[in-house]
Amino acid sequence: MTQASLDIVAMGDAIVDVIADCDEDFIRAHNLPKGSMQLLTPSEADELYAAMGMAREMSGGSAANSMAGVAAMGGRAAFIGQIAEDQLGMIFEHDMHALGVSFDTPPLPKGDGSGPPTGRCLILVTPDGQRTMNTCPGASHELEATALDRDLIASGSILFLEGYLFGPEKPRAAMMEAIKVAHAANRRVAFTLSESVCIAGRKESFSEMIESGGVDLLFCNEDEAFQLTGRTDLKHALTDLSIKVATVVVTSGPEGAAAIENGERIAIPAAPVNEVVDTTGAGDLFAAGFLTARCKGATLERCLWTGAIAAAEIIQHYGARPVTDLKSLVKL
Amino acid sequence: MTQASLDIVAMGDAIVDVIADCDEDFIRAHNLPKGSMQLLTPSEADELYAAMGMAREMSGGSAANSMAGVAAMGGRAAFIGQIAEDQLGMIFEHDMHALGVSFDTPPLPKGDGSGPPTGRCLILVTPDGQRTMNTCPGASHELEATALDRDLIASGSILFLEGYLFGPEKPRAAMMEAIKVAHAANRRVAFTLSESVCIAGRKESFSEMIESGGVDLLFCNEDEAFQLTGRTDLKHALTDLSIKVATVVVTSGPEGAAAIENGERIAIPAAPVNEVVDTTGAGDLFAAGFLTARCKGATLERCLWTGAIAAAEIIQHYGARPVTDLKSLVKL
Repeated sequence: MTQASLDIVAMGDAIVDVIADCDEDFIRAHNLPKGSMQLLTPSEADELYAAMGMAREMSGGSAANSMAGVAAMGGRAAFIGQIAEDQLGMIFEHDMHALGVSFDTPPLPKGDGSGPPTGRCLILVTPDGQRTMNTCPGASHELEATALDRDLIASGSILFLEGYLFGPEKPRAAMMEAIKVAHAANRRVAFTLSESVCIAGRKESFSEMIESGGVDLLFCNEDEAFQLTGRTDLKHALTDLSIKVATVVVTSGPEGAAAIENGERIAIPAAPVNEVVDTTGAGDLFAAGFLTARCKGATLERCLWTGAIAAAEIIQHYGARPVTDLKSLVKL
Repeated sequence: MTQASLDIVAMGDAIVDVIADCDEDFIRAHNLPKGSMQLLTPSEADELYAAMGMAREMSGGSAANSMAGVAAMGGRAAFIGQIAEDQLGMIFEHDMHALGVSFDTPPLPKGDGSGPPTGRCLILVTPDGQRTMNTCPGASHELEATALDRDLIASGSILFLEGYLFGPEKPRAAMMEAIKVAHAANRRVAFTLSESVCIAGRKESFSEMIESGGVDLLFCNEDEAFQLTGRTDLKHALTDLSIKVATVVVTSGPEGAAAIENGERIAIPAAPVNEVVDTTGAGDLFAAGFLTARCKGATLERCLWTGAIAAAEIIQHYGARPVTDLKSLVKL
């Protein structure tokens, strides 16, 4: 086993967030899954966008946000994801590079304009700071195993996989392949259980992957842990998950986070925040903090705290990429 | 003269702002005109963009920002400007409509991809809140007189023209044509003297336009007033400008603003701000406040105050479009 030259190599959605404020009535009138994520067809996305208020655009994507966080905390990160050769794709690529994250997945060619464009996520933020995500994945879900850079994956201490990409067939196959490459190189595999993994049809194949030892570190929130295990209390859910996964981390929003590893259980409260502006990216940045601390050899408790601090930073401003000096905040 | 069905019809750059923080060293190293605007070729823009940090994107354009402000304060606004049929163009169009601003200028077709894309403005914000703008105008400078909706122009109480568009030949010709249409319909013409008007070659044609009575209301900042008149004190500069322009308004940043109209001179201080985050759009929103108040029949002093309040709102957050409830702030 050679020394890893990178800390984290992530695979996830390569999308640009389109963020607008709205009131509770808007969420109800458009039947949106408040606090959660839904996938939209291009025409549904166009319709919702037309109804939305003035927006700001920022690069997004769950695992990509995490890598932005890892880089901001001084970790060495790379990202694998599918953009198209268009303006939003160039924005996504620029922002990854500007943050110091390696990102070289070749864009889908524009061709005659009939191919899928770079994905967008229409994010509605209600006055309580909750975000409701409406994703039009576009090129993002066209990621194929052939686009994988195997040497890159083998060079990362941890391969980090985003659950949102576990739904569509092509990127799921690419992820399964990436897991093989990572494990063959003796690397660890972390998986963040985005809510969409829990729906019927995906849950089963995800459970199979866990059963087969595909995942070494699992991030999820309480709801996801309950849905996946069928339990209704956190303690039992954690125990169930820890049978097949070495390290399980569960976030509980303002209630804090808990982890179980080698029989050790630790729970911490959330880091203090002045005002919740926009919860987009809270889970992504929690994972970023945890993973960065882990790669620096921190204790399980310190990993949880680092995640909590990074999550607290992100929910105090708009957008899911850090704006303050995270590195000095987390003091790793 | 028929009743105006709109308050303001504006002509200006249709561009998307790409906003990133930077330090003073970055400004110096890239030889950027701090606090001012420069035009970049596409390759220069690509080079600067590659060097910039992670950015957020928001619809921009000086007069377009003003119309966003007018609409936010309850004014009836329309905008004329040239986008291309691409992703940034769709973002610009969406945001205008989302704000309730009429915007129907047909986009330039994408065609085979060789035409100019929608314009971008790379905005670097230094820790002092100052913005330095680097514009790659793209389609924006392709606005032609043939794209003008004459009925629309005739329907607005005030035609508002952005100086940045007075440089390039095609949009300048379109502006001259628009002035004729507005004056034929007995409407007033307001002009905001963006710094680029003051450079050699443009100053002369601008002076000619003023001499011929083309402008009824002029917005400028102190520097612009000095450059245009050759004066070095505000009082004389105002007097000189007021000979040919019925209403002259000069903004002086944190020093406040002054106006001269029908021999009446009024000066006001700036509205108080807690923290200057990003000065982008200060002048645009000042004009928006002034114009909206004017269309509601406010006194000259109240027009200045309304501008000052709108400008104070915009410099306390990122981006040049209002985010708080301007209408209730200005209480027109």
